[in-house]
Amino acid sequence: MKLWLFLAAAAPLLAQAPLQFAELRNFRLSSGQEIASCKLGYRTYGTLNADKSNALLIPTWFTGTSAQLEGLVGAQRLADPSRYFVITVDAPGNGVSCSPSNTGAALDRLSIADMVEAERRLVTEVLGIRRLHAVMGISMGGMQTFEWITSHADMVRLAVPIVGSPRLSPSDILLWSAELAAIETLLGSGADPHRIMPAVRMMHEFALTSPGWIHDNRRGTEMPSFLQQLAEDARKGVDPRDYAAQLRAMLGHDVTRRFGGSYEKAGAAVQARVLVVAAEQDHMVNPRPALEMASVAGFGVLRLKSNCGHLATRCEDARIAAAVRGFLAPAR
Amino acid sequence: MKLWLFLAAAAPLLAQAPLQFAELRNFRLSSGQEIASCKLGYRTYGTLNADKSNALLIPTWFTGTSAQLEGLVGAQRLADPSRYFVITVDAPGNGVSCSPSNTGAALDRLSIADMVEAERRLVTEVLGIRRLHAVMGISMGGMQTFEWITSHADMVRLAVPIVGSPRLSPSDILLWSAELAAIETLLGSGADPHRIMPAVRMMHEFALTSPGWIHDNRRGTEMPSFLQQLAEDARKGVDPRDYAAQLRAMLGHDVTRRFGGSYEKAGAAVQARVLVVAAEQDHMVNPRPALEMASVAGFGVLRLKSNCGHLATRCEDARIAAAVRGFLAPAR
Repeated sequence: MKLWLFLAAAAPLLAQAPLQFAELRNFRLSSGQEIASCKLGYRTYGTLNADKSNALLIPTWFTGTSAQLEGLVGAQRLADPSRYFVITVDAPGNGVSCSPSNTGAALDRLSIADMVEAERRLVTEVLGIRRLHAVMGISMGGMQTFEWITSHADMVRLAVPIVGSPRLSPSDILLWSAELAAIETLLGSGADPHRIMPAVRMMHEFALTSPGWIHDNRRGTEMPSFLQQLAEDARKGVDPRDYAAQLRAMLGHDVTRRFGGSYEKAGAAVQARVLVVAAEQDHMVNPRPALEMASVAGFGVLRLKSNCGHLATRCEDARIAAAVRGFLAPAR
Repeated sequence: MKLWLFLAAAAPLLAQAPLQFAELRNFRLSSGQEIASCKLGYRTYGTLNADKSNALLIPTWFTGTSAQLEGLVGAQRLADPSRYFVITVDAPGNGVSCSPSNTGAALDRLSIADMVEAERRLVTEVLGIRRLHAVMGISMGGMQTFEWITSHADMVRLAVPIVGSPRLSPSDILLWSAELAAIETLLGSGADPHRIMPAVRMMHEFALTSPGWIHDNRRGTEMPSFLQQLAEDARKGVDPRDYAAQLRAMLGHDVTRRFGGSYEKAGAAVQARVLVVAAEQDHMVNPRPALEMASVAGFGVLRLKSNCGHLATRCEDARIAAAVRGFLAPAR
């Protein structure tokens, strides 16, 4: 979701951190395949305290990078590096960390659980942290957050999935299957798969906000140049193999899979205190599964109402940041 | 919009009529090109009265056929053949009438105005009718209805554009440009363009209702077979060249083009009494342009509220039929 770039661009650069890599050897995927080496990109901000109790993990959104997460870090942003040791992670499949484009086809069958496993190994093996103060993420980062609190319940104190989901709604499945079908049509054809990315990008853009928001915020006369810009960005953007791999990971996501499909049972396994941030008019990640699980599991909920859809995190930015800061503090 | 098929299937078959063809010689397109012969498919129901004042024209929706319009004809439906001489028309580009697939590439640059010109010639030259009691259409049929009342104002007494539009919202442009870009990627590649139609069909299906409707009416477990069925239907469905031609026609649609972009001026040219039927949650044909023009031009409005989106015409079927019957009667 390239539009998230604006966040990094618009926010004052309160924090900058170099990209680092952790090498995860013999990285085993949930598909059963094993990668000899998975390089995982990450950045850190602030200082880990003596008892290692102030770590805050932020995984990337769909196709996002840790560089793009920089806008979330700052005293008035979601993660204050003067209080927390903030770790942002490039989720596998994003083209920075191990991905089909740089490591090979075994990563075509990546899962959200694999992303979380990579992050767990980074946190425990590389950074020596046993328990996270918080996990927080936007969109696919929110899916990873739901996976963290259900699969490593004792490792997370607080969690904030933002426009994320514990499992997919049929509407999400339909949207992402359309994008994946378009890419796979070209991946199987011998033609350059980058050629389909403009169409995929337009489809994605359509669902990123809402028809009402688009009507209010775009002009008909500007559409030709806007579409041309989207197409150009898409042609030189994310590698289609990586894009497809992260789509497949999201399409397979379901934290209730180990709990007989039950939100109640999955919710009962959670030890973290959780604040779900959900956008009611979100057309890209349907808010209903997160709200349904929040309801049965007693999670806190912040409802976003604007017609920005999935991008409500932009339009209601300040409100989210204030709520999240309040929820996270005080660090223990 | 294949889902409309259910309408024909579900409604009692009160009316059946054979497919007829009118041959339009030297058919001149708004692009400037001329087709030596355009065969136009149509069906009629009921009897034309002595003064030829009871004709009701219904053009097809996007990719629709006159066969699919049969469900709209009946005493309790939208068009009662005991009162009206009902003419349903296969819009050019639908694969029945002259289309890229059967007539050639000149029709790649079809416009909504060309569809209306073909219908005007059918009505005047073939059926000998000077003025229509009513024009009524759903979706792209509603776009043709808006074109009729602004370009042939003295030929239409009553008009009912249903989930149609006088010009496109940027949200419609984004959606249909995505579908068109996907098809054109394959049309230009030498590969069989039918291969991209499953992805296009899924994208179309996503926008046909709303994420909320899909969440409420589909189950996650049924999605694999549902997607497979969509893909199979799409592969053997509408010819991609025809699908693309009608998409381009919609993308170029704007009844204000001859009125300096003004709804006021376009509305002032309308002589028909108009009832706009608009679905507030329509994600496929944004209702705002129709509502904006209705507001400045003093058209009547029936607002549909359900989360069926563009398919509100199904979910609020009986309400629409009753309102339309009341609006059309009495035939003079």
